[in-house]
Amino acid sequence: MSKANAFYAQSGGVTAVINATACGVIETARKNRNRIANVYAGRNGIIGALSEDLIDTGKESARAVAALRHTPGGAFGTARYKLKGIDENRAEYERLIEVFKAHNIGYFFYNGGNDSMDTAHKVSQISRHLGFPVTCLGVPKTVDNDLPVIDNCPGFGSVAKYVAVSTKEAALDVLSMSRTSTKVFILEVMGRHAGWIAAAGGLAGSGAAGEPPHIILFPEIPFNKRAFLKRVRESVSKYDYCVIVVSEGTRYPNGRFLAEAGTTDAFGHAQLGGVAPVVAQMVRDNLGYKYHYAVADYLQRSARHIASATDAKQAYAVGRAAVKMALAGETAVMPIIRRLSDKPYRWKIDKAPLARVANREKLLPRRYISSDGFSITAAARRYLEPLVRGEDYPPYINGLPNYVTLRNVPVAKRLKTDFVV
Amino acid sequence: MSKANAFYAQSGGVTAVINATACGVIETARKNRNRIANVYAGRNGIIGALSEDLIDTGKESARAVAALRHTPGGAFGTARYKLKGIDENRAEYERLIEVFKAHNIGYFFYNGGNDSMDTAHKVSQISRHLGFPVTCLGVPKTVDNDLPVIDNCPGFGSVAKYVAVSTKEAALDVLSMSRTSTKVFILEVMGRHAGWIAAAGGLAGSGAAGEPPHIILFPEIPFNKRAFLKRVRESVSKYDYCVIVVSEGTRYPNGRFLAEAGTTDAFGHAQLGGVAPVVAQMVRDNLGYKYHYAVADYLQRSARHIASATDAKQAYAVGRAAVKMALAGETAVMPIIRRLSDKPYRWKIDKAPLARVANREKLLPRRYISSDGFSITAAARRYLEPLVRGEDYPPYINGLPNYVTLRNVPVAKRLKTDFVV
Repeated sequence: MSKANAFYAQSGGVTAVINATACGVIETARKNRNRIANVYAGRNGIIGALSEDLIDTGKESARAVAALRHTPGGAFGTARYKLKGIDENRAEYERLIEVFKAHNIGYFFYNGGNDSMDTAHKVSQISRHLGFPVTCLGVPKTVDNDLPVIDNCPGFGSVAKYVAVSTKEAALDVLSMSRTSTKVFILEVMGRHAGWIAAAGGLAGSGAAGEPPHIILFPEIPFNKRAFLKRVRESVSKYDYCVIVVSEGTRYPNGRFLAEAGTTDAFGHAQLGGVAPVVAQMVRDNLGYKYHYAVADYLQRSARHIASATDAKQAYAVGRAAVKMALAGETAVMPIIRRLSDKPYRWKIDKAPLARVANREKLLPRRYISSDGFSITAAARRYLEPLVRGEDYPPYINGLPNYVTLRNVPVAKRLKTDFVV
Repeated sequence: MSKANAFYAQSGGVTAVINATACGVIETARKNRNRIANVYAGRNGIIGALSEDLIDTGKESARAVAALRHTPGGAFGTARYKLKGIDENRAEYERLIEVFKAHNIGYFFYNGGNDSMDTAHKVSQISRHLGFPVTCLGVPKTVDNDLPVIDNCPGFGSVAKYVAVSTKEAALDVLSMSRTSTKVFILEVMGRHAGWIAAAGGLAGSGAAGEPPHIILFPEIPFNKRAFLKRVRESVSKYDYCVIVVSEGTRYPNGRFLAEAGTTDAFGHAQLGGVAPVVAQMVRDNLGYKYHYAVADYLQRSARHIASATDAKQAYAVGRAAVKMALAGETAVMPIIRRLSDKPYRWKIDKAPLARVANREKLLPRRYISSDGFSITAAARRYLEPLVRGEDYPPYINGLPNYVTLRNVPVAKRLKTDFVV
């Protein structure tokens, strides 16, 4: 195979370890310079490819690339941008191939979730039709842990660890104050469709009666207000406090999100609050308990300072594996993590065809949720525990993590045409 | 001096390192068993003393006591309970002395903020009048950093580090998404009267133009909506994003908190939201930018996993110093941290009379806030940086911090009378 360049892009919401995957891709490509001339990254994800806005990662020092392994966020920028279907917007795909051709891109690494796997799959198909076959690899990433086929998604272990640790710490705070102050604490976490992140909050305690969190609200379980309030009251009367982890995706039986509570501000504008204040107010109005709530939001998915060592290692591994698979002639596949055993936790990298991954969502299985719907089962613990295991601290300077900012030097444009995204 | 017991209580909101102070008190008392027979802790703070609900810390192993050094929350429970003035409720003070007498308590260590120092001061005065003189030491603690005389309060350095690290991490997240997603990110932090915690967010960047946070809103600076919105627009147009750290205590020029925005829910109930959603909505309504916000709430003050090593060390040191001062015959004083130099950072333990500390608040000085009111100055950086320096990680088991739960064995009651708190 002749020497070609590789294109790498990050897609969708970032994670604490997506740059570790970038690090795995670039370092592995550099070890194979006889096959891969250079890695060009898309500035702001796939938009960089469409607009021929490429970043020359060859201009980054080995040290800067190595530092990606411990730097959160998306080092080259990412985008929430889904390519349309080929029939709807063939021009986008043709443009991609045009850019790839102009820059001798023989490898396409797309680091994202379900949608991105669909895109990578389509690019692999159309590139052949357009006479410039590109090797297309999906590289898994998502805090939501909702990709099918793969045992767990890189990015999830770290958000899970953040949520478990934060829940455990806040619970100690609330408990020590509960005699005269806050009785109910609510932590809002991500996961609009799948309850994986909320489930991770369950690791804060051992699962024994009275251990926090006392209630988890999952998107998979229709919200039952009466049962919920009853449980809050029981927890406060038995244990003096109640710690609640609530997924942003929690819904009423009619499908409406709790977060869409129809609250309005002083001017009558609809207020797009989070779900935590809605739950807090429900508790106050019905039970009168003093409450506090936290909204973790972006903190949870950027908290590289408390990343899971398992997660950081796997994020790097899928990046490295993607390059190796590409060099081995594989295309339209995604490296996956396959669990071999829970205790001791053993895993290996395997692969799955993109067609099997694209556009499918893996929800939290019902057997991971207790029968009353408010906590996690032993099976869920067995699944989750290895994923949060190990600490992988970034280096610090003067009390703050020493995260890298890349130079992000642009590749000179070769096309005369612009493309409006 | 004859052998007596010591009473130790935690008061008010907890911190990530208040138990390190408890550890310093107990370990130092144990080293002086010839003088201090045992340390009895108040269950739920001063309420434990009033209700004769004492915890025998002598029943805890050396290992459990040592583990307090890395465990957040309040190990014996704390309370928001302020003793009334002596004239208003002399009975409370008499009851304290009655309990102290019954349990041969010769030393009173009260670990808290301004109010608590006032209480400790009053107890020292009245115990003499009541013929049972007790040695009374205040031990400083507060995330708010608003105690006078002391250079910085134990507890503050760790929340400062949490806020600085979280702001830095979230900023990387927002920046990488800003092309197609969120432009404005808002982090709400504590500090109802003083802007110390918000100021710590300023450490997330170097202070150079364009570095996050782009705006800090302090309680000390009356909120100027027009100037604020102008600054948000400038930041987004110049840097593509805007990171805002807002103190919960931010107020309009008329003194009203931004958080009291008069929002109502669907039923017309007044909504006690945080300040972050109010600022977020202001940005959306006036500028139309997509936003996200996080509310750190209790997470910030319980985040022992990212505690400042300087803070943990100082928290222990004030506990140890309090016992040593008591044994040296000091009373009605508080150990303080005195800064000797910024670079290199050097400090020592000194002492201050409780009368000078009680009921006074130290706000962020104007010279720590930039002239436009939206960021911190170089002087503020010189002050803040040493306080967040160093990492002091707790031990982990299976991916989660190994925090200790004490046995908290009660001391047998000796009084026939109850006291209703």
